[in-house]
Amino acid sequence: MTTTETGADAASTPGIVTDHDRGIHGYHEQKQEHLKRLRRIEGQIRGLQRMVDEDVYCIDILTQVSASTKALQSFALQLLEEHLRHCVADAAVKGGDEIDAKVKEATQAIARMLRT
Amino acid sequence: MTTTETGADAASTPGIVTDHDRGIHGYHEQKQEHLKRLRRIEGQIRGLQRMVDEDVYCIDILTQVSASTKALQSFALQLLEEHLRHCVADAAVKGGDEIDAKVKEATQAIARMLRT
Amino acid sequence: MTTTETGADAASTPGIVTDHDRGIHGYHEQKQEHLKRLRRIEGQIRGLQRMVDEDVYCIDILTQVSASTKALQSFALQLLEEHLRHCVADAAVKGGDEIDAKVKEATQAIARMLRT
Amino acid sequence: MTTTETGADAASTPGIVTDHDRGIHGYHEQKQEHLKRLRRIEGQIRGLQRMVDEDVYCIDILTQVSASTKALQSFALQLLEEHLRHCVADAAVKGGDEIDAKVKEATQAIARMLRT
Repeated sequence: MTTTETGADAASTPGIVTDHDRGIHGYHEQKQEHLKRLRRIEGQIRGLQRMVDEDVYCIDILTQVSASTKALQSFALQLLEEHLRHCVADAAVKGGDEIDAKVKEATQAIARMLRT
Repeated sequence: MTTTETGADAASTPGIVTDHDRGIHGYHEQKQEHLKRLRRIEGQIRGLQRMVDEDVYCIDILTQVSASTKALQSFALQLLEEHLRHCVADAAVKGGDEIDAKVKEATQAIARMLRT
Repeated sequence: MTTTETGADAASTPGIVTDHDRGIHGYHEQKQEHLKRLRRIEGQIRGLQRMVDEDVYCIDILTQVSASTKALQSFALQLLEEHLRHCVADAAVKGGDEIDAKVKEATQAIARMLRT
Repeated sequence: MTTTETGADAASTPGIVTDHDRGIHGYHEQKQEHLKRLRRIEGQIRGLQRMVDEDVYCIDILTQVSASTKALQSFALQLLEEHLRHCVADAAVKGGDEIDAKVKEATQAIARMLRT
């Protein structure tokens, strides 16, 4: 637990500015990839509307719903990985109480993902 | 759709053709409601794109992803209920082996919903 | 379509008692298989206790939790399939309002499975 | 087992020994609470066996399965929170590449939880 103090020192050292301080969240770099994924999901949802409109067989619609849900979960997992890698790890390096709040917040987000 | 109510009686009356025979699936009546739900989900997915584009905090995006996933699951559950009520129940009334195939098919669709 | 009449007749013929009437639910025949599955899951849960007791690495414990959850879901799906095949199909054959209640009840059970 | 971990960590920061180096994972303190939770889940699984044995109504068994799955998910979430708080945060503080591996590993564990 001595490492925590080392982390606190690093965080309080002037001149060290993390990405998070700049308001650039972890997912910034992957932004274009995220938007592409979401546009594909939007297309899937429009595809579902066409299927309902054309009276496609219920089970085939359910299969497409599952594919869309999977795509959303996959997007969420990538976002979460970047969040843990950047925001949560940054809080750990900074030291102090922030890491507890960040970990609790991330766990609650995972709980929401599980309950849907 | 008065034919639906007729459907129950149709099973015991020869010459009466059920909705399912005509290719009109269980979800037909709720078509407008389904399309409305799906358009709302499409709006949520576009909202997610805006959030990513505006660098909204990761956890807030995850919360919105969970809401969209929940809405999709809720849509799937309604579709499934109508499918069980119409297609599966019709197969049971008709007798024969079709009910086994229908139940297996529905269970596999539920399994896919659970695994996403 | 000829079988339809048979099914309808069976349901309305007095003296014909279905399994369900006798209080023997759909899963009766698979009882031994179900008990075997559940004993295996009980063994997995005891395995988890040993892992916690022996300070096994968190991620390895999480992997084992996922395996147990999957086994429980798989058991639930088999139970549900038998329920749809027997209780729900029986209600459809009998006619009347019971099928609506049975389908609603089954859908709510599926919703509970999805939300965990 | 403990010596392996100490060896790996000694390479990055000599002299500094974290809880993790000692083979004491994040969940150590909550060990008794975890064991209590798991024993309760074990009791639920035995309860399920009784229900199957006594031919309890399928839907009531499904409700109990959902409760057990929820309890397992809840246990997994607590374990994960402690893992993020200790192992992942420790890796962030230590610096180096370990944080990437830890975050990837945690995300994969979450993905497995979601897919069950």
